Amino acid sequence: MSPQYPDENSLLKKIAQAAGPLAKKELRILARGIGDDAALFKPKPGHEMILTCDWFLEGTHFLRAVSDVAAMGGMPRCFLLSLALPESHTGPWLDLFLGGLRRASRKFQCALAGGDTTRRQEILINVTVVGEVRSGHAVLRSGARAGDVLYVSGRLGEAELGQQLLRQCKGVVSEKNPLIRKHLYPDPRVALGEWLAKRGLATAMMDLSDGLSSDLPRLCAAGGVGARVESAKIPLVKKPAVHGKQALDLLQLALHGGDDYELLFTVPRRFANRLPQRFRGVPLTAIGEITRGQRPVVILADGPEQRLVPGGWDPFRG
Amino acid sequence: MSPQYPDENSLLKKIAQAAGPLAKKELRILARGIGDDAALFKPKPGHEMILTCDWFLEGTHFLRAVSDVAAMGGMPRCFLLSLALPESHTGPWLDLFLGGLRRASRKFQCALAGGDTTRRQEILINVTVVGEVRSGHAVLRSGARAGDVLYVSGRLGEAELGQQLLRQCKGVVSEKNPLIRKHLYPDPRVALGEWLAKRGLATAMMDLSDGLSSDLPRLCAAGGVGARVESAKIPLVKKPAVHGKQALDLLQLALHGGDDYELLFTVPRRFANRLPQRFRGVPLTAIGEITRGQRPVVILADGPEQRLVPGGWDPFRG
Repeated sequence: MSPQYPDENSLLKKIAQAAGPLAKKELRILARGIGDDAALFKPKPGHEMILTCDWFLEGTHFLRAVSDVAAMGGMPRCFLLSLALPESHTGPWLDLFLGGLRRASRKFQCALAGGDTTRRQEILINVTVVGEVRSGHAVLRSGARAGDVLYVSGRLGEAELGQQLLRQCKGVVSEKNPLIRKHLYPDPRVALGEWLAKRGLATAMMDLSDGLSSDLPRLCAAGGVGARVESAKIPLVKKPAVHGKQALDLLQLALHGGDDYELLFTVPRRFANRLPQRFRGVPLTAIGEITRGQRPVVILADGPEQRLVPGGWDPFRG
Repeated sequence: MSPQYPDENSLLKKIAQAAGPLAKKELRILARGIGDDAALFKPKPGHEMILTCDWFLEGTHFLRAVSDVAAMGGMPRCFLLSLALPESHTGPWLDLFLGGLRRASRKFQCALAGGDTTRRQEILINVTVVGEVRSGHAVLRSGARAGDVLYVSGRLGEAELGQQLLRQCKGVVSEKNPLIRKHLYPDPRVALGEWLAKRGLATAMMDLSDGLSSDLPRLCAAGGVGARVESAKIPLVKKPAVHGKQALDLLQLALHGGDDYELLFTVPRRFANRLPQRFRGVPLTAIGEITRGQRPVVILADGPEQRLVPGGWDPFRG
C-alpha cells in the first residue's frame, strides 16, 4: 500500500461523518451503525425484510436499489456501502459522491448502516439496500393473472429522451430540464409502491429499468402469463421544444427506452376503479391486460397485433 | 460489450443453478431468491437482523462476513453476491468459485438470496451476509466493563503461521496441514458466538481479523475501557514439525498475526465459572481482564507492563 492511500479506518470515518449522526427515527431501526462487526436492524413486529444490491459507478444509481425495494411495495430503511477506489478518488471526488448519497439517503429516509472499503485501480461501488414490508404484503413479479389490468406509472421514455438531450444538446438545454433530471436522478416510486401493497391492489409489480419491451416479458414469464398492450394507451413523453437532429419516435422511446424506474403493475379488474388517475401527481395509466398467452403482444393503433420484442434498447444506445 | 461476455441473465442463471434449489429450511426464511426485484427475508418474531458486507477476491473470504455475524452472536441466514468479472473469468474460474461458495454456504446454512453482476477489467466480489439474532441478545463491541474477564477462542497466530508455511515450504508441507487450512479456510465461530449470546454470558465480543494487538484496542475504545493481558496465558500455536528458515516467535505470532477469525470476548467475573474449557473442541482461554484504563497493556512473563501496540502486523507481511 502506498502511504498516500488513506487507511481503512480514516476512510470509514470520513464516510460516517458524511452520513451524519443517526436521526431519532433511524436509531429506532438501527441499533448499530458503522463501527461494530456488523449493523443491527430491528424490523417491526409482523414485518419482513427486502434485500437488494446493485453495482454502480455514479452517485445517483443508489436510486436503482431503492427502486427495487419500491417495486416490491416496501419502504427502504437502511443501506450498506462498499467502495473500491483508486487513491486519486479518496479526496474531493469522494466528498462530492458522499454528499450526493447523503442527500438521496435523507430524501428516502434510508440510513447508512455500514460498509467496507478497498483499494482498486477502477472505481467500483456496491450498495445493498434493506427495506421493510408488512408480512405477506410484498408484491412479487409472479402474481399476475389472466384478466388483470396492466398499469404503468408516469410517462415512458422520459429518461431515454433526457439522455439523448444531454448528449446531443449540451449547452443548449439546461441540466435542470425535467427530462435530463429524470435521466440523471430517477425518482423511485416508493410511496406509490407502498400504497399499492398496503391496499392489496396490485397482484404483480416490478420497476421499469430496461424499458417496457424488456421488462414486461419478465413479468409475464414470472407469472406464466401473456399480456396485450394497446400502443395508443401508452403514456408517451411530451415532445420537448428542443431536441436533436434525429426524428423523435415517441412510441419507440416508450417501448424501448430504459432507466425510467416507473412501476409496471397489474390490478384485478374488479379493483381497477379504486385506482386514482394520478397518485401524488404521477399519472397511473391502464395500458392493456394480462392474457392466458405465453408472451406479451402489442396492438399498434394502425396495424395488427405484434409480438413485443425486447432489445429495441441496444440500437438506441449504439 | 463484446459478444463473448455472457449477458447478465445468463450469468445470474449460472449463479442460481450453482446455488441449487432452496432447501425447505431456506424456503421458510426466504420468500424469493434470485429472479425478483429483490429478496424477501422473514425474520422470526422477536428477532433482529444483522447486516454485514465485505469485499473479497477469493472464495474463502465469504467466511469473513460470516465471522462478522458470529461476532455479534447471530446466525448467518442468507447472502447477496455481487460479481464484477472480466470476460476471462466467466467460465471455469466462475464454476470453481461458485462451487466453493456453495460448499461454504451449505456448511453455514446461509442461502444465496440474490445479487448483481457487472463487467470489469479486474475481479471484484462483494458479499452481504444477513444474520439473525434474538431481540436484545446481540453482543456489541462496546459492552466491556472494568473487572470483566477477557477471553479468546482457539489458538492465536495459527492462520499467520499457515500463511508463512504456505509461502516458505511449498511442496514440503501438504495443503491439508491444519495450519495452512486455517489460513485458507478460516472457521468462523458461529456456534460459540450464538451460545454466548443466548446465555447472556458475553458483555462485548468481536472477531480477530487483524490480530490481537490491533483488535483489542478497538474493543477497548468502543467500551471506553482498558485491558490487561498476561502474555503467559495467551494460547499459542503449537510449533509445527516443519517451518521456514526464520526463527519462530510464537508470542509475536499470537499478538500480531491476522486472519485467525477467533472470537475475543468479555465475561463478567461472576459468570466466568459457567464457561467450559472447551466449546465443541475449541479451547476457551482467559487471557486477562478489562480495566478502568484507557488502553490495553500486556504483561510479559519476564518483564514489566507494556502498552499493546497495534501494527506488529505490517513487518510480518513485509
